[in-house]
Amino acid sequence: MKDLHGGNIYKFQREGKNDILDYSSNINPLGVPQKFINIAKESFDKLVNYPDPYYIDLRKKIAEFNSLDLSNIIVGNGATEILFLYLKALKPKKVLILAPCFAEYERALKSVSAEITYFELKESDNFYPNIENLKKEIETNNYDLLLFCNPNNPTGQFIKLEDIKEIVVACENKNTKIFVDEAFIEFIENWQEKTVSLFKNKNIFIMRAFTKFFAIPGLRLGYGIGFDDEILNKMWDEKEPWTVNTFANLAGLVMLDDKEYIEKSEKWILEEKKFMYKELSEFQYLKAYRTECNFILLKIQNISSASLRDKMIEKNILIRDASNFKFLDYHFVRLAIKDRESNIKVLEALADIIEYRG
Amino acid sequence: MKDLHGGNIYKFQREGKNDILDYSSNINPLGVPQKFINIAKESFDKLVNYPDPYYIDLRKKIAEFNSLDLSNIIVGNGATEILFLYLKALKPKKVLILAPCFAEYERALKSVSAEITYFELKESDNFYPNIENLKKEIETNNYDLLLFCNPNNPTGQFIKLEDIKEIVVACENKNTKIFVDEAFIEFIENWQEKTVSLFKNKNIFIMRAFTKFFAIPGLRLGYGIGFDDEILNKMWDEKEPWTVNTFANLAGLVMLDDKEYIEKSEKWILEEKKFMYKELSEFQYLKAYRTECNFILLKIQNISSASLRDKMIEKNILIRDASNFKFLDYHFVRLAIKDRESNIKVLEALADIIEYRG
Repeated sequence: MKDLHGGNIYKFQREGKNDILDYSSNINPLGVPQKFINIAKESFDKLVNYPDPYYIDLRKKIAEFNSLDLSNIIVGNGATEILFLYLKALKPKKVLILAPCFAEYERALKSVSAEITYFELKESDNFYPNIENLKKEIETNNYDLLLFCNPNNPTGQFIKLEDIKEIVVACENKNTKIFVDEAFIEFIENWQEKTVSLFKNKNIFIMRAFTKFFAIPGLRLGYGIGFDDEILNKMWDEKEPWTVNTFANLAGLVMLDDKEYIEKSEKWILEEKKFMYKELSEFQYLKAYRTECNFILLKIQNISSASLRDKMIEKNILIRDASNFKFLDYHFVRLAIKDRESNIKVLEALADIIEYRG
Repeated sequence: MKDLHGGNIYKFQREGKNDILDYSSNINPLGVPQKFINIAKESFDKLVNYPDPYYIDLRKKIAEFNSLDLSNIIVGNGATEILFLYLKALKPKKVLILAPCFAEYERALKSVSAEITYFELKESDNFYPNIENLKKEIETNNYDLLLFCNPNNPTGQFIKLEDIKEIVVACENKNTKIFVDEAFIEFIENWQEKTVSLFKNKNIFIMRAFTKFFAIPGLRLGYGIGFDDEILNKMWDEKEPWTVNTFANLAGLVMLDDKEYIEKSEKWILEEKKFMYKELSEFQYLKAYRTECNFILLKIQNISSASLRDKMIEKNILIRDASNFKFLDYHFVRLAIKDRESNIKVLEALADIIEYRG
């Protein structure tokens, strides 16, 4: 396990920086939903029992939330477990990934010895995939699996359902399975009308997370949506028992019913992503890529990503140096989008460092 | 993932049996430590951060508790994750297991395609291993790994350190690694003087759990102790990030310092295992095997294990039908040992069913 991710604030805490503002991980700033906290505080006695190894109630709730059946749902210790289980079950040999993308895909694919080809999301296309080229790539090769993230981390781009439909047809003709990471989809406006789960297609497997939208990376809860019983059964066979603990289980049961939190979050992200994009677009020495999500990719011109990161840490703000993402380089950083007050602090810090360096 | 374990009370809860007394899983009846609950109730805001992927503070605490170094410790989502990680790292081809034993070993070993040989713990030896025969078995074969549980589930037997020493020497001569499951060792009187971790031997890897002694199967926290950097590094490489969630992490930090809970638990188990053994020894139609642990294996003579289990469920008590343990059959059941009041209920129910059947 290598240090590939944002959000490792512990290094800083051990150095005495306890009040660091974490803009390196993309978590809903509304924080842990209060309704869950209230119920969880009365539920400590439940810890003396093992969780239900089949998580029937939780999977029913998730199925209902997605207008699907219990049998379509598998739950995991964060989305990460779902990704690893799927790959262990499918054992793909040749895999095509849209990149830049989340680093954990590569690690997971290497753990099953898959051969990885990267399909580049080009800066000149604002990181939106060229659908014709992608179809051609699928049609002229024999990939076992196409893997992509939608909306995509770190670029913030969201592929439209009609474009995905074309890709699905191309994949079906070549018997290429599709794995879609939808860990951030709840931040998309009216996402229920835009998710690939609407296709109910046997070739498609979808990964979701509670981590980002419900602000609980510390609890570890993710799930998978599948329509192919053979793959799902293999995943259950591979699964280590009880990896979702009692509190993560409870969180799932409570949070999907928390309409107030969900609506408040939707309102927040709609406002703040517009605000951040607009403000960042006014900077002279950086380019902000339009995002549909709760983070934003920046290209910076007059300082390296590592230097900017270090200078921001001096100002007690942790941002994500995005130079280690495939096809990106030292010009790129990723910022979370949080509450207005914090966003303004970050904008001011950035202006200090980038715009008025001397 | 198959239904191999005790403790799945959810089936019964879904049938409306909410108040079932669970004697099928071996959990400390003192319940979730109150000190942890008090601190956890104030820690929900920590869930907005990912856990430290290296769990430095937790591993330091565990190392200290065991008078070892941070580098000797790896943590996991329950002991189960530790078992799977070790096997993925070692990739043993030929494995010798002492049995009857925990069913998850077989499942984990099959997941790495290991060939399993069972060394029988014989009823005629009260399920204590015949050390001479075991040494011979190791010396005349080429096992990559010897795996055993100490104290052993479901037999309750504890192998003495001087006997293990002989086995360690035999294994070293054949380059056979040793994996010892010590998930129940804290229930052994003065266990600190009896654990194989005292050997600090490179060939030995030890698995421990918080689950049983600290009564938190719902939280999922286990750890491994190793002295071979190569194996430990491979395990870290294989490990999926953040599998121990923030509350499990916190539990580890708080509970090992909870001297009051630990002492109270030690006093309880000392008294109750004597009580249960003595009471059960007076039954005419069953044989109780002497246990050093918080559960007890019974051989029953006038009813099958499945029938006894069903009849106990009618009395709202769930016991473990032990017939599916290797080398056991329909004569065997396993009982947890809990608080005096519950133990008396179970003894009375047993007497009703076994002794006065008509």
